[in-house]
Amino acid sequence: MSSDVGLFEAMYTARAIRRFKPDPVPDALILEVIEAGTMAPSAANGQPWAFVVVRDADSKRFIQQRYAVTFHAAYASGRTQIDQAPSGSQARLMTAASYLADHLADVPVLLFCCVERYGARRPGREHEPRHDSIFPAVQNILLACRGLGLGACLTTLHALHETEIHERLGIPAAYASPAMIPIGFPRDRHGPIRRRPAAEVTHWERW
Amino acid sequence: MSSDVGLFEAMYTARAIRRFKPDPVPDALILEVIEAGTMAPSAANGQPWAFVVVRDADSKRFIQQRYAVTFHAAYASGRTQIDQAPSGSQARLMTAASYLADHLADVPVLLFCCVERYGARRPGREHEPRHDSIFPAVQNILLACRGLGLGACLTTLHALHETEIHERLGIPAAYASPAMIPIGFPRDRHGPIRRRPAAEVTHWERW
Repeated sequence: MSSDVGLFEAMYTARAIRRFKPDPVPDALILEVIEAGTMAPSAANGQPWAFVVVRDADSKRFIQQRYAVTFHAAYASGRTQIDQAPSGSQARLMTAASYLADHLADVPVLLFCCVERYGARRPGREHEPRHDSIFPAVQNILLACRGLGLGACLTTLHALHETEIHERLGIPAAYASPAMIPIGFPRDRHGPIRRRPAAEVTHWERW
Repeated sequence: MSSDVGLFEAMYTARAIRRFKPDPVPDALILEVIEAGTMAPSAANGQPWAFVVVRDADSKRFIQQRYAVTFHAAYASGRTQIDQAPSGSQARLMTAASYLADHLADVPVLLFCCVERYGARRPGREHEPRHDSIFPAVQNILLACRGLGLGACLTTLHALHETEIHERLGIPAAYASPAMIPIGFPRDRHGPIRRRPAAEVTHWERW
């Protein structure tokens, strides 16, 4: 609770940070952002989450080797989903995302945000993560990083290598890790976020 | 941007609010919370979201009739997922959630947070919502409500009646609505959130 950045200032400037200084992140700061994550809601307040903090160089290389392959296969091939963003920021995003994919092992912390799978609760969807009980916490973590002067961004491509990565990190089969958050002190700058106007994506009473 | 509540203060006191005053919520405030939502990240910044603001009394009754049936079938029958919460707060949560289910039509605003389905991007999972591109926005909306003196909570049970409710609201087939956020001026109070300690859900290097 050491920060008093304004809520709206944090939300409006918490840019995705994809380039980091090499400086290590103190354990206390990591716990602080995770604690902020746990203040988020979860279904019936079940808190079915867990967090794995990866700083070990070998583990980070293991993850990067898999993440980078998937990134370049998915994006460099042109199968990009970035076509809705303004063109200048689209190019910058691609450059930074590509840099991140190739330098994951150099990021001080890779935070795996884990959540239980539905299991018997949802016949036919047993294996699926309880997304609604982890992504609100993920957003709190991203905002907490912004508030504490850390950089962070939301990534999900590691999930395509879930079996190998979970085995490496000892994550139990009952859990998925729908989000991985690289964290460190930022080389990129936080700053104003540009999005499509709210009025364009808002419908009153009916779509 | 009219609020300057602290980021951490907001995250640590944004309790789920399930009882509301009848006072209407001005359009400008609704747009402000939606705009805060759109500051959240989405996959490759695609912003594949849309928001439907429901205030019409008939529509809210239509939704309540379906939501309440599902709530009471799922929870009052004892199939509760609340068993991990501290016992006092568990009972309070059940009481408030049950009250909400029976009074949804009286809540000033029901905000449907919509997001594209995966479609052709994910063979075999075409119908599934792009959860990672809506729940961060949902959390920003919950925090923005806290910052602006509004109450809100995250609900998902309406999704079990998606076909009927989407037809009623004109939501296109390519979109899901994984979250519905009741919003109004709070009768319940915001206040400190209690959760399991972060250290208990954090693993260093390996689970």
